[in-house]
Amino acid sequence: MPDSKPLTVLVNPNVAEAEKTAREAVSQHKTLIVIGNCWVHYQGRARSELEPGERILVIKQDGSLLVHRSVGYEPVNWQPPGCVFHTQMRGNFLEVHAVRQKPAESVKVSFDRIQMVSALSLQDSGEFSLYASEEDMQKAILCRPSLLEEGFKPISYEKRVQPGFVDVYGVDKDGKLVVVEIKRKKAGKEAAIQLAKYVDAVKSRADREVRGILAAPSIAKEVQRTLETLGLEFKSLDPKKCAETLRRSETAKLTEFFVEK
Amino acid sequence: MPDSKPLTVLVNPNVAEAEKTAREAVSQHKTLIVIGNCWVHYQGRARSELEPGERILVIKQDGSLLVHRSVGYEPVNWQPPGCVFHTQMRGNFLEVHAVRQKPAESVKVSFDRIQMVSALSLQDSGEFSLYASEEDMQKAILCRPSLLEEGFKPISYEKRVQPGFVDVYGVDKDGKLVVVEIKRKKAGKEAAIQLAKYVDAVKSRADREVRGILAAPSIAKEVQRTLETLGLEFKSLDPKKCAETLRRSETAKLTEFFVEK
Repeated sequence: MPDSKPLTVLVNPNVAEAEKTAREAVSQHKTLIVIGNCWVHYQGRARSELEPGERILVIKQDGSLLVHRSVGYEPVNWQPPGCVFHTQMRGNFLEVHAVRQKPAESVKVSFDRIQMVSALSLQDSGEFSLYASEEDMQKAILCRPSLLEEGFKPISYEKRVQPGFVDVYGVDKDGKLVVVEIKRKKAGKEAAIQLAKYVDAVKSRADREVRGILAAPSIAKEVQRTLETLGLEFKSLDPKKCAETLRRSETAKLTEFFVEK
Repeated sequence: MPDSKPLTVLVNPNVAEAEKTAREAVSQHKTLIVIGNCWVHYQGRARSELEPGERILVIKQDGSLLVHRSVGYEPVNWQPPGCVFHTQMRGNFLEVHAVRQKPAESVKVSFDRIQMVSALSLQDSGEFSLYASEEDMQKAILCRPSLLEEGFKPISYEKRVQPGFVDVYGVDKDGKLVVVEIKRKKAGKEAAIQLAKYVDAVKSRADREVRGILAAPSIAKEVQRTLETLGLEFKSLDPKKCAETLRRSETAKLTEFFVEK
């Protein structure tokens, strides 16, 4: 029978009490927080060892797992949703074992001293919304040009040309000049015409081929045809992805955790 | 004067009590956990809104911040270390405001109902060690070929050639065949000679140029000279980075949070 208590908190419990609460929490798919002195062994894709120290273990309602140290915003150990958990007493230790099948991965967290155990069900149906402005999208392309296309190299932004300012200006992998016009919503006819004007202005002074790219989350069918008629291109660019890229690129400098950068 | 209590836990506190504990915790650079019904506004690089729901707020001793929902291993909102925090009562709400200067970012978490507040100092000097085998390094290259070099495309692994098995076999961006020999420790002379044999074996049956790359964390100076004499190359490949790549690539499929993949 599910435990209907909304919140269980044990302060400085003994290991047996902690194990009981942890076991009930994972079997009832509650969120479990255990704070105490622990060590962690991970084996799966690669292998890791974490020596003893005081940390925060969080097991979520979807079977994901986090081990957080006192510093750093990334977990030191973690597993995505879908783990199966086993808790047991092992001598004087509480052992929490998280196992995934595909790929085969195992995280074992062993506590010898527990400061707090907390188990609860979080009620949460709130929406998360991430917004990016055209300026954010521009910054995202400058900071990760491959968002536009592989091999693109930005030269400048807000480049002044006769009719106004080019959002992003650069060269593609073949050395052609590229003029980029960014829209954060479905691109309309005006955007296509504006881009054509910029491309013409750049062409009139360039010694090589010039491409025009309209980057926007989507485009109306008839505008797509207009673009083609004008010899221009459309590139789907998601404002949300741009926003995430900006956030990641900033923090990538701070840490090696995100190995991609 | 610093509070010497190792652990403070308030269960179902009123907003004023929670604010007092939160304020003391951040001023004393303790780890703070607040669980309750909250909403979050982020403004900085891009902008986000999180509607009300029950979540876990964690503020760490280094000034990093995490907001965790009941599902997913990633935080819904987060800030890297170095934030400055302000807590205040705002009507019946507890407002926790985290601010960074460079880049200018602000996260505001507002609670109207608090289930638990916990403040503590975590003692933790344990080492974290991540290990990768040669097989892990091989998998990492297969799963992210740019670890070896830009434009590399793997064709096969454990390819049988006369003297044994080639770790990774592929083509480079210019269409040349590439034979890769992987070592997880400093590469010695035997590795260079082994690679030379594989390259010779592939050359004898190939209709195009064949490159040999020895991929290892480091190489002895005299082995570097041997490689050059043999017309082979060395590529520094960090086993730890390979291990992290494997872990990331696995989870990248599960989520859009890591936008790089």
